[in-house]
Amino acid sequence: MAANKRIPVMEIFGPTVQGEGMVIGRKTMFVRTAGCDYSCSWCDSAFTWDGSGKEDIRMLTAHETIEELEKTGGEAFGHVTISGGNPALLPQLGELIDQLHERGIGVALETQGSRWQDWFWTIDELTLSPKPPSSGMKTDWTVLDDIVDKLNEHERCFSLKTVVFDEADLEYATYVHRRYPQVPFYVQAGNGNLQETEPQRMLPYLLERYEWLIERVMPNPELKRVHVLPQLHTWVWGNKKGV
Amino acid sequence: MAANKRIPVMEIFGPTVQGEGMVIGRKTMFVRTAGCDYSCSWCDSAFTWDGSGKEDIRMLTAHETIEELEKTGGEAFGHVTISGGNPALLPQLGELIDQLHERGIGVALETQGSRWQDWFWTIDELTLSPKPPSSGMKTDWTVLDDIVDKLNEHERCFSLKTVVFDEADLEYATYVHRRYPQVPFYVQAGNGNLQETEPQRMLPYLLERYEWLIERVMPNPELKRVHVLPQLHTWVWGNKKGV
Repeated sequence: MAANKRIPVMEIFGPTVQGEGMVIGRKTMFVRTAGCDYSCSWCDSAFTWDGSGKEDIRMLTAHETIEELEKTGGEAFGHVTISGGNPALLPQLGELIDQLHERGIGVALETQGSRWQDWFWTIDELTLSPKPPSSGMKTDWTVLDDIVDKLNEHERCFSLKTVVFDEADLEYATYVHRRYPQVPFYVQAGNGNLQETEPQRMLPYLLERYEWLIERVMPNPELKRVHVLPQLHTWVWGNKKGV
Repeated sequence: MAANKRIPVMEIFGPTVQGEGMVIGRKTMFVRTAGCDYSCSWCDSAFTWDGSGKEDIRMLTAHETIEELEKTGGEAFGHVTISGGNPALLPQLGELIDQLHERGIGVALETQGSRWQDWFWTIDELTLSPKPPSSGMKTDWTVLDDIVDKLNEHERCFSLKTVVFDEADLEYATYVHRRYPQVPFYVQAGNGNLQETEPQRMLPYLLERYEWLIERVMPNPELKRVHVLPQLHTWVWGNKKGV
């Protein structure tokens, strides 16, 4: 098989609980791919693109990826989440998604919405998460408009999600919702405490950030049709990787 | 208007965050109705049926209920959750639901699934939450089968949810999922600490219960297509009412 059909896989783990967005709480396996076109200041998976996790990248075929999912998750899973990095950089993911579907396994995927792939149409729960000002990134609205249009044309199940750290981020989130009012929208309290290793010490901080976001969103008439969520897995596992 | 067209309303509050199940995180208003055909041992809203909240019940028309929703929530909401007690005891709710829809407002409703109402077909997100053994209640499976069949016939958006306190409850939950494998299923960690008034003191307990449930569900091959969720609002507000 040609090398470019292989997938740069950073980690495979689970089954665990999906901690974010439209699939929050779902029992799922994770496949994390390497490589990203962004470099968000607060990225919680920077090892996928900053070189620090380079040694852990393995080039797997779709079949090998599924074999490892089965070795890790046994009989206990029926859903896989593909995350990154930005998995939308990888046209070859279509084959993995098809093979999972053939086995009756549901597939969720998260991407910032900076690139289109035709396999977006086949994802069961697709989350587009444009990045707010605090990330240091710039959103290309033309690209995002095009992705949203294409998904709407095929009536796909997808949502938008924006992580919010501060007032400027919230303004950005409000703009996202105004631009795409018909798309289910999730605002998520950002975790600015990536160094803490003790989950118990993180909880009061995460709770405070979530309450801050709730207080801002509740009285806001521009944010009517929204979900406000924490990053649930950080409440349980803190910054621990691979859970 | 005839008295029997009026709704026994216990409380109206919001906008706040939906803390449970398929609508978790959704910005919503709450209408809590009085009266229940059950008396679950651990009910967190026993004041709706045990007589202790009798003074707070007001008999409101659909129109009066919406007026109060608007007075309380202003322009800031686009979604209402109807909870109880068991709102499925009230045929007259159909009118409220229709009037909310006419205003473009989405409606979620939660009931144990012990009674059918034709307005079930009009709910945007309906949660059926059959009660496990720890509640002290008995499930009438014939009634629940009938409700699930009727909802499936009309392809309605609904889910099942079971609160889990112990191993017997988890066995019950597994049975529910086995009986209705095609219905999205949510298992929720039960809150057995209804007396605690300090949210901060509750958190370690709630976290421990949620982790316990995750540990049980993750390796279980019979619980593949499930969501595992906490009662999110208790993490933020503890047992506080009206938030």
